[in-house]
Amino acid sequence: MALRFEILKADKNSGARLGRCHTAHGVFHTPAFIPVGTQATVKSMTPEELRKMGAEIILSNTYHLYLRPGHERIRRLGKLHHFMHWNYPLLTDSGGFQVFSLNSLVKVSPEGVQFQSHLDGSRHFISPEMAVEIQEALGADIIMCLDECTAYPASHEEAGRSLELTLHWSRRCKNAHRSPDQALFGIVQGGIYPDLRKKSVEVLAEIGFDGYAIGGVAVGESKEMMSRVVAETAPLLPADRPRYLMGVGTPADILAAVQQGLDMFDCVLPTRNARNGNLFTHSGKIVIKNAKYAEDSLPIELGCSCYTCRHYSRAYIRHLFLAEEILAFRLNTIHNLHFYLKMMSNLRQATAEDRLPGFIQDFNSRWEFGDEKAAGGEQLISSPRSDQI
Amino acid sequence: MALRFEILKADKNSGARLGRCHTAHGVFHTPAFIPVGTQATVKSMTPEELRKMGAEIILSNTYHLYLRPGHERIRRLGKLHHFMHWNYPLLTDSGGFQVFSLNSLVKVSPEGVQFQSHLDGSRHFISPEMAVEIQEALGADIIMCLDECTAYPASHEEAGRSLELTLHWSRRCKNAHRSPDQALFGIVQGGIYPDLRKKSVEVLAEIGFDGYAIGGVAVGESKEMMSRVVAETAPLLPADRPRYLMGVGTPADILAAVQQGLDMFDCVLPTRNARNGNLFTHSGKIVIKNAKYAEDSLPIELGCSCYTCRHYSRAYIRHLFLAEEILAFRLNTIHNLHFYLKMMSNLRQATAEDRLPGFIQDFNSRWEFGDEKAAGGEQLISSPRSDQI
Repeated sequence: MALRFEILKADKNSGARLGRCHTAHGVFHTPAFIPVGTQATVKSMTPEELRKMGAEIILSNTYHLYLRPGHERIRRLGKLHHFMHWNYPLLTDSGGFQVFSLNSLVKVSPEGVQFQSHLDGSRHFISPEMAVEIQEALGADIIMCLDECTAYPASHEEAGRSLELTLHWSRRCKNAHRSPDQALFGIVQGGIYPDLRKKSVEVLAEIGFDGYAIGGVAVGESKEMMSRVVAETAPLLPADRPRYLMGVGTPADILAAVQQGLDMFDCVLPTRNARNGNLFTHSGKIVIKNAKYAEDSLPIELGCSCYTCRHYSRAYIRHLFLAEEILAFRLNTIHNLHFYLKMMSNLRQATAEDRLPGFIQDFNSRWEFGDEKAAGGEQLISSPRSDQI
Repeated sequence: MALRFEILKADKNSGARLGRCHTAHGVFHTPAFIPVGTQATVKSMTPEELRKMGAEIILSNTYHLYLRPGHERIRRLGKLHHFMHWNYPLLTDSGGFQVFSLNSLVKVSPEGVQFQSHLDGSRHFISPEMAVEIQEALGADIIMCLDECTAYPASHEEAGRSLELTLHWSRRCKNAHRSPDQALFGIVQGGIYPDLRKKSVEVLAEIGFDGYAIGGVAVGESKEMMSRVVAETAPLLPADRPRYLMGVGTPADILAAVQQGLDMFDCVLPTRNARNGNLFTHSGKIVIKNAKYAEDSLPIELGCSCYTCRHYSRAYIRHLFLAEEILAFRLNTIHNLHFYLKMMSNLRQATAEDRLPGFIQDFNSRWEFGDEKAAGGEQLISSPRSDQI
């Protein structure tokens, strides 16, 4: 089997579980946050830096790598791990999400999806079999089935038709899947409709995958609706396989989903916010360009052990950010990713010590910004994966 | 004394010397290359990375820091070393060069220079006393006198008038200089005229400085003319003080000037070229965006021990560069700075072992690109400091 999932502990007070995922390139611990490395690099970071701050698995986007530099090229260059100098667990999505979110001229048929490149307008066609083939060329440890991310809002009928397509494609992906070192995950769709989500889980489980993802959330629906879909869907997922909530989210989103039994999360929020100068602290957001930080000699967060906070003041980072210096993006990314990854390891520790509810309560009570608007009109909420350009 | 300069060895076959400069923040070895950190950061690098690749002293630009974030702010934040987390030898220029090169509306008088900010058009006036005061607020270990960089071409009369102004300002800088931990260097001007250069050296030596710089070269004159000015001026400079060739240059320029007895060099060439994807190797330039590197699995330079060459292929770096990924700028900067700094340490080693001529001959014979045009119409030759924006 390409993936072995050990559940080390089930939380007494919630659906949370503590786990260990063994892949062809080593182990990652769950619940896991997966930094996004869209174009074969987690923006501004080296692999060594990522490991140092506790990243055990990262994600790259098939759509982007298929277009540039090309999956066959990456295969010839020794596959993605070697290409990008990341010799640890690696996940690629199927490319489906970006096909739909980054393109206007998309034609979907049972055969697959036709689209134009956002880079040069060139025409491309991807079938479920090709999505698997491309991901085999890239060689990630975990690969995803091609799915249609159901839009929001969608009627029950539309969501149902879309789900049928995803299930059809999932069967074909499973049949096309050959590489013994790659785990294949199915993606649960069905929009906001409990019956469709249930059906989706049932059919996917029947086909049989190495893991199951919840897709089609954080696509424009309300927070409450997203929580409801996750809460209703998660318990239906096979308990002995890793459960992956795609493209989510804020710290609060992740903490809530962990309690529903989700094991894996990816999101551009920490890295993208870093580049926008929106920095995570336990007591609220810092918009580093604000004038009040101009002579602030404190670190981004007092007591934070990241490289940035150990050596630099808010005043210096603000200066770098306003001067558009590359080091600003680096220092901010280090801090935000450290914040997320440290939160995950603290969360795992709390679960191990039977104090998860207290940990989450404490985290949320210190947290102030929630859905507050950040600088530039960006919301510090779950960001759809469409931001990965 | 703010600076102690030990000459460890004088080369038998040339004017080259091996030295050690003791400053308030430690030692640097000469001949030294000084990476440029214009806005209180060597673009894309951390101080730890710079030290690791052998940087012992770096430079920041007074003009830029005066305008943003402001020298008084930096003073209040613990001065520049603390602000930018660089606790090693540090040099600031006087700001004069940028005042002249980055501004069109400049009014010069014996009192000083009036200019408009390139950032927001605001009006400013800097006198020689203020140039010293600003640099005291920044707190670098080596500071420079305010000078007027004589334009090229300039008649003998124009160059003479300009020199008088610089000498007048140099006297005033010396009188204004108070801080015991900062070494003050004078800057030799005089254009391409040997008699003016000679006079400049004589007057500055009479005033007495901790070190002497040759300014006003690499400002548009030919390579041959620059070489001549350096060759004629260098032997006149006080032998017991460090000699600094400002804003120079290519590896060949530096190797030639070392043989004339120059000890210090700063240039944006390695860092700026890195960001443009022009990479230094011992056998010629690499323009990484070229299609021929698309599937090249070799490192930038075989045998190079830098972090970039130990872990990444040309193909990967090309991909990152075309995708405009921040990591491309980082990896390229690491390689180019490593190339320069390694060249300097090899050069010092060769001098210590009495084999400098052979080293330089070997270096130049492997070197192919000289004045060749690089991508984007940029010349890989000495770049004026005006590139530091």
